[in-house]
Amino acid sequence: MDDLAELLRAGLPDEALITDPDVMAAYSRDMAGFCAAGAPAAVVLPRTVEQVQHVMRTATALRVPVVPQGARTGLSGAANATDGCIVLSLVAMDRILEINTVDRIAVVEPGVINAVLSRAVAEQGLFYPPDPSSWETCTIGGNIGTASGGLCCVKYGVTAEYVLGLDVVLADGRLLTTGRRTAKGVAGYDLTRLFVGSEGSLGVVVRAVLALRPAPPQQLSLAAEFPSADAACEAVCAIMERGHAPSLLEIMDRTTLRAVNALARMGLPESTEALLLAAFDTPDPVADLAAVGEVCAEFGATQVVPSETFAESELLLQARRLSLTALEAVKSATMIDDVCVPRSKLGAMIGGTAAIAAKHGLTIGVCAHAGDGNTHPVVCFDSADEDESRRARASFDEIMALGLELGGTITGEHGVGVLKKDWLARELGPVGMELQRSVKAAFDPLGILNPGKLF
Amino acid sequence: MDDLAELLRAGLPDEALITDPDVMAAYSRDMAGFCAAGAPAAVVLPRTVEQVQHVMRTATALRVPVVPQGARTGLSGAANATDGCIVLSLVAMDRILEINTVDRIAVVEPGVINAVLSRAVAEQGLFYPPDPSSWETCTIGGNIGTASGGLCCVKYGVTAEYVLGLDVVLADGRLLTTGRRTAKGVAGYDLTRLFVGSEGSLGVVVRAVLALRPAPPQQLSLAAEFPSADAACEAVCAIMERGHAPSLLEIMDRTTLRAVNALARMGLPESTEALLLAAFDTPDPVADLAAVGEVCAEFGATQVVPSETFAESELLLQARRLSLTALEAVKSATMIDDVCVPRSKLGAMIGGTAAIAAKHGLTIGVCAHAGDGNTHPVVCFDSADEDESRRARASFDEIMALGLELGGTITGEHGVGVLKKDWLARELGPVGMELQRSVKAAFDPLGILNPGKLF
Repeated sequence: MDDLAELLRAGLPDEALITDPDVMAAYSRDMAGFCAAGAPAAVVLPRTVEQVQHVMRTATALRVPVVPQGARTGLSGAANATDGCIVLSLVAMDRILEINTVDRIAVVEPGVINAVLSRAVAEQGLFYPPDPSSWETCTIGGNIGTASGGLCCVKYGVTAEYVLGLDVVLADGRLLTTGRRTAKGVAGYDLTRLFVGSEGSLGVVVRAVLALRPAPPQQLSLAAEFPSADAACEAVCAIMERGHAPSLLEIMDRTTLRAVNALARMGLPESTEALLLAAFDTPDPVADLAAVGEVCAEFGATQVVPSETFAESELLLQARRLSLTALEAVKSATMIDDVCVPRSKLGAMIGGTAAIAAKHGLTIGVCAHAGDGNTHPVVCFDSADEDESRRARASFDEIMALGLELGGTITGEHGVGVLKKDWLARELGPVGMELQRSVKAAFDPLGILNPGKLF
Repeated sequence: MDDLAELLRAGLPDEALITDPDVMAAYSRDMAGFCAAGAPAAVVLPRTVEQVQHVMRTATALRVPVVPQGARTGLSGAANATDGCIVLSLVAMDRILEINTVDRIAVVEPGVINAVLSRAVAEQGLFYPPDPSSWETCTIGGNIGTASGGLCCVKYGVTAEYVLGLDVVLADGRLLTTGRRTAKGVAGYDLTRLFVGSEGSLGVVVRAVLALRPAPPQQLSLAAEFPSADAACEAVCAIMERGHAPSLLEIMDRTTLRAVNALARMGLPESTEALLLAAFDTPDPVADLAAVGEVCAEFGATQVVPSETFAESELLLQARRLSLTALEAVKSATMIDDVCVPRSKLGAMIGGTAAIAAKHGLTIGVCAHAGDGNTHPVVCFDSADEDESRRARASFDEIMALGLELGGTITGEHGVGVLKKDWLARELGPVGMELQRSVKAAFDPLGILNPGKLF
């Protein structure tokens, strides 16, 4: 351990190395519950690519595991420390290096906060779509590690679709440049995409070239109240089948609505079974909302309320963004699931989740990126109650099993981390797992990069 | 060889195995010039996944190379046979297995023709965007192997962005399922994207889940004549910088215009230095075209002619699609390049290409997916003239060198194949090449899948 600190110090400025156990403890875990976290041997906050290379060379020399880390807003424990590891926090590499309005790209360091980038490009008439709920605090590097989604994915896709090229420090400290800064490019295997969503297990992203889009018009939303989640899901299917392109299409169930009201007194309708939120950032959002409102009415909505102002729209979005935080206040603990099913199966998924909650006598609030079929069932429970905790874990697993049965995936956007690694094999099967491991071995033969995550 | 045929025959219907040398010769090469092609030992046209698995198991047992093949419309020699190989043509696996309008996906076998799929989904109000010039004959499997682009990429992106999941027969005959049929999913490394653009060197795609979009309105186009390619490129940059979202933005130079007129008497303006084509499939294309027309005028367009009908628009597109064929008729041989640069460097790329043509005394026609910065310089030369052939090859290489110098890539959408494999290392560098090879070894340890391509 002393050796490690000494060797690290040789290539780092003093302020970049933390070995105080109390300070290190703050870096030991992300926001996932129920995921083991160890005690790091050192926390490093590099400011340059060379410093990252020094850390990886040292780690390789001493065979010490390295856990790359962003803002620790992750929900699957992928950034949790393991005993004796180096936590490599990239938050201090936070420069926006370039915004190019003709090429519609940004070049950034990994520690740039999502919202900081979004605002910087907006000032130049551009748009960086990926918007996880934690966008005010999470980093682009973390978003890349997790392949994060967000509210706008239904129209604009996920982080992966915006990563054109990367600079990556490999396990042995060498620097790899992948991808491009051009709109297209097919020279060799797409290693860029392999790093996206790899949860720091293949290399350390130190620079990213991101694609931007022209800023769309501001979005306008509506809220529709439904007498059942099923009816709301049927409306979602019809909206998508009829070719609408909403910039947001979200469902909140009654449990979630009550939780948000309790937290923030937002006046959401608590008597309804499912609230559907839709938004359009098209040239004529009023007309688009009217059309979608009619679909909602056709499928049984009891009330359809289009926002009249952008401010009203923004408030609805705030309510949606608060959902997880609000549900966390319901009981002493929560487990947030992230199952994504084909959108035609959304009703079955939400209905099945309700049945699982009933069976176990648990409160499970559901909010969902409905247009993507991506549900976030939040299991609320009392962590001091052993039996309830056991039932919570059981329900969490049953929700994933249901997702797989419906042709879905155990994780739409939160990643595998520690939380779901036992489930990965069930989704991928033995051949898939073997190839995943081969890829890992090709990039990190010593297995020092974020070991114990994913697999 | 007899062993091979016998072993193959044991798991294939008679009509699926071809060993007649004359018939096999027809399967020995794609549409790339100047790429060596060998004589296959057998050509197999499987109809089922099991038959593909049988072929791969046999090939593994005998250590025989396998060259996966679509419609052989490729432009880099990636589908060319090597001596003694099995050509594995997937064209007979041509069923559309499913089109789901709610989930907006299609599930297809690899031999489905791009245009067949495009028309089938259009009948259901959906849209499969990738549209390489060969779309009437090329296959989806080939498109996936090459990560093909097309005319609509400037708005809708390339093939890679539409491949959600794959079934792949591995080198040893095992079946791997990757990806998903959901809108989102981050379970494990993104192996799906690794196969896209891998030119048949990692596995044999036998089924694909493709994302579809709602069909947009029909597009309307304009043509703008410019006194110089530079002025046209400046207009392109301004169009994109000002946030327009054309569904097509193409440049044809004078050489190309003349060639197309000569082939098809289309009445294109031969006196102009560069013709810019722009199209919009927006709700109000007339207004969008008017705005873009003004940008063109601002940057020196001598004439701006908006199409008045969809039929007129379609004719302009036909002219553009005919460009390569037309340039092929200029001299006895052509070499088609595919350099993609950041769009801000498009003018430098086209100007530099003209300088290279002048230096070598060659005719080089340029058409370009201008909005993507993706140029297709077509070197026209007399293949019987040894010196001209040598200069043609030299100019081809200088064009790639120029592309790299300008921050671009040696291939935007045609792939590496045999044609550009010497150049791949120059683009990727030694660290990149080493990792590319490690990935190859992880999937194909015996090196039997399309050997001699890419690397």
